[in-house]
Amino acid sequence: MTAVATTPAYQALTDTFRRLHHLEHLQSIAYWDRAAKMPPSGAAARAAALAEVAAISHRLRTSADMPVLLADAAQEPLADDQRANLREMQREWRAANALPDDLVQRSKLASARCEHAWRSQRQANDWPGFAANFREVVENAREQARRRADAGALAPYDALLDEYEPEMTGARLDALFGEVRQWLPGLIQRVRAHQSAQTEPLLPLRGPFELGAQRALCQKVAALLGFDFKSGRIDVSTHPFAGGVPEDVRLTTRYESHEFITSLLGVVHECGHGRYEQCRPRDWLGQPLSQARSMGIHESQSLSFEMQLARHPGFTRLLAPLLRQAFGDQQAFEPANLRRLLTRVKPGLIRVDADEVTYAAHVLLRYGIERPLIEGAIEVDDIPALWDAGMAELLGLDSRGNYCDGPMQDVHWPEGIFGYFPCYTLGAMYAAQWFATMRAQMPDLDQHIDAGDLQPIFTWLETHIWREGSRWPTDELARRASGEALNPAYWRNHLERRYLRDAA
Amino acid sequence: MTAVATTPAYQALTDTFRRLHHLEHLQSIAYWDRAAKMPPSGAAARAAALAEVAAISHRLRTSADMPVLLADAAQEPLADDQRANLREMQREWRAANALPDDLVQRSKLASARCEHAWRSQRQANDWPGFAANFREVVENAREQARRRADAGALAPYDALLDEYEPEMTGARLDALFGEVRQWLPGLIQRVRAHQSAQTEPLLPLRGPFELGAQRALCQKVAALLGFDFKSGRIDVSTHPFAGGVPEDVRLTTRYESHEFITSLLGVVHECGHGRYEQCRPRDWLGQPLSQARSMGIHESQSLSFEMQLARHPGFTRLLAPLLRQAFGDQQAFEPANLRRLLTRVKPGLIRVDADEVTYAAHVLLRYGIERPLIEGAIEVDDIPALWDAGMAELLGLDSRGNYCDGPMQDVHWPEGIFGYFPCYTLGAMYAAQWFATMRAQMPDLDQHIDAGDLQPIFTWLETHIWREGSRWPTDELARRASGEALNPAYWRNHLERRYLRDAA
Repeated sequence: MTAVATTPAYQALTDTFRRLHHLEHLQSIAYWDRAAKMPPSGAAARAAALAEVAAISHRLRTSADMPVLLADAAQEPLADDQRANLREMQREWRAANALPDDLVQRSKLASARCEHAWRSQRQANDWPGFAANFREVVENAREQARRRADAGALAPYDALLDEYEPEMTGARLDALFGEVRQWLPGLIQRVRAHQSAQTEPLLPLRGPFELGAQRALCQKVAALLGFDFKSGRIDVSTHPFAGGVPEDVRLTTRYESHEFITSLLGVVHECGHGRYEQCRPRDWLGQPLSQARSMGIHESQSLSFEMQLARHPGFTRLLAPLLRQAFGDQQAFEPANLRRLLTRVKPGLIRVDADEVTYAAHVLLRYGIERPLIEGAIEVDDIPALWDAGMAELLGLDSRGNYCDGPMQDVHWPEGIFGYFPCYTLGAMYAAQWFATMRAQMPDLDQHIDAGDLQPIFTWLETHIWREGSRWPTDELARRASGEALNPAYWRNHLERRYLRDAA
Repeated sequence: MTAVATTPAYQALTDTFRRLHHLEHLQSIAYWDRAAKMPPSGAAARAAALAEVAAISHRLRTSADMPVLLADAAQEPLADDQRANLREMQREWRAANALPDDLVQRSKLASARCEHAWRSQRQANDWPGFAANFREVVENAREQARRRADAGALAPYDALLDEYEPEMTGARLDALFGEVRQWLPGLIQRVRAHQSAQTEPLLPLRGPFELGAQRALCQKVAALLGFDFKSGRIDVSTHPFAGGVPEDVRLTTRYESHEFITSLLGVVHECGHGRYEQCRPRDWLGQPLSQARSMGIHESQSLSFEMQLARHPGFTRLLAPLLRQAFGDQQAFEPANLRRLLTRVKPGLIRVDADEVTYAAHVLLRYGIERPLIEGAIEVDDIPALWDAGMAELLGLDSRGNYCDGPMQDVHWPEGIFGYFPCYTLGAMYAAQWFATMRAQMPDLDQHIDAGDLQPIFTWLETHIWREGSRWPTDELARRASGEALNPAYWRNHLERRYLRDAA
């Protein structure tokens, strides 16, 4: 092959990244196993084994010849896809090399300590106890942000965002979220009034719902959503996730007998992640170009499934006979009633329980706190007051003194994860943009969904998102898919159409 | 620690072996996952990931500083356990370094090709097709044997045995198995006559047996056998095995609704392996000293559970109420009837279906073929005639033309595994020796078992076998446990007592 002869540095890099990919395979399966299968006494040995592989990967990523190879490859005659692959290699290399080992170790230890203590402190509503550990986590995150910022010529918070959402910046989020903050509280009030005015009684679902039947239902719905069971499976874990590897995607959910909506919509959500992973560009598997574009784009796939699609009247029509088959007949399974149950809007304190409309309020609140926290404009002790003020402003709720259902509710901060929360709402915005584009390109899209034909959606997503992997920067991906970079007007329009005008 | 200061080479070696242990952890879990959980399309990616880790492990085992460290460590002031650990390190190093990489690769490819084709050739009874691939597997095994023999100053077949049963030799097996060959066919005939003479009708088990109830039964019996579910689990795979890691042992079995004995005794067997793994010396985990002594000793644990214990009248008394609980009442569950069902002797063509008495005949047959095959005294084309002659002599069965239930029945040979079969019968011999010793040391052992108290057995095995790991060479382990090295008279005596004189 001439490619090998004329691009030796690039070829050497692809070998290294293929080796990293193989190690990531075992890490992913071991993570899944830990969450879904591992008995408790296996934990310490698993942690040691994973640390060993992480160290091997880190040595590969930081080996002395990498910067030389990256510089040499940039001078080689590469095809467009190869050049895009090299761009992603450079990004990965920069991230892996920005932090000194001792900071990584210190951060891991502090986060592990904080997260472990948080599990009981949260139950005890013990904010002062939590804050004592959390201060160290924040200090480490600030140092990480500073060092990443120096390495990438970015602002500190932007440097943390970069890990999950490359190209996104605090300035851009300020504009995006600042506008949402203007209209969201009003929209929530109007939706609540609109839904209260409906006179038709809303029929509740009556449990219990047998766990075996829930499992079978979730398998059927996943198959309906095109999840490939030859390349994946669904198991149970405490916190649902999509893991595994592109050739073998592992989804998890959790079943409880008193209700089935959480497990079912959990599986629908993870199926969106799962299909993205299963359909990443096959020719490029093992190379950075094949990877999912960003966490915001990833969430745009799970939310395309969970929000755009699963709340569509056509989807509840598909669901109704499956529910009757699984649990016997209930009047509440009538499609119009189901749709109303799934689109009920009610402000609440807990993010993961939030509906499609109020969810973003939780993200705005967290963004408004974590950014100044990382930038040093506020301190850990300032969080409760800011939280209470945000909850009152955005959702009209009183959260004072309720730390466990407040700033202590999520695992992200105790684990030292800052910059991830915005991706949830970016994903919702992107998902609305994709569906608006689909409707513009396929004026009969809703008739297809109403007729139970979901294939046009899958084909569009596969063509414009899944198969593209990381070939393009995010803005370019969005432009090629929808004609423009992220435009939050589509999402606002979607919410107003669905929640005020009862459109699909 | 002064130990570190005065034994730097030894300490460096323990670091390397600890790293290898961590990599083996991920390999074991990935193997288990592949057999028990992985969907079919995950196979290629899994193979590539496992090959990557195997290569990393191989580089660690064959790094240039290893022979230097091993030589230096031998001169250091080591404690007895450390010296035993070093002895096992040397053995592992010798095995890993005996074979050139290209031979390992060639052998893997040929075995994979042969094993893959064998799956359909076996069903088609296609001996010539199988033989064509198998010749290459044998050639590679002969070369491996020669090279290992040169590296370890052993005879070729002994060098293959060394991987599974260190210290065992063809000469010793000839003596052991040659004697068995003299009395086993006669014993089988006498047992058959003895069992035919019993006038009490033997009640058969009547299925179907619900799979969920089988699963629950197996979990209960495993718990009864002391399997620690905090450090392990039981799943389903096509071929039952005990895998995972000592801190997290993964047993598998297979359930079929028309009968439950295979799955249940499969779990009992794997529990023997599993408890050995769970109880390897904890202080030494990660070091070669903690490893199970040999495959023969490992099989002595599974057969202590499956044969010595599970066919004991006290055990069938324990089992009867559990069977009634699982499947409802059947007269056949009466303990004496169960015991007769489990000790029924009937020659058959298939090794894995064989009873306790005829099983060894299958092993003698294979040993009598694979040893001259490796030594070049016979060729692949000679196998069918030798097989038929052995089957007629040992079990009085006609196997002519039935290759699929003859030399093609097991996966070992197509996979290039030679030297393993003897371990099954060595295990049966050792198990009988352990129980004879227990009875000598605890004259009331059978009363304990009859009363449902299995703890004395577990305590003895844990003290004399499990906790010892690889601290002693096998003969020394046997001597310390039972006062003498392997003595097959215990096993013959056990078979005659149980099958001719109806003792426990």
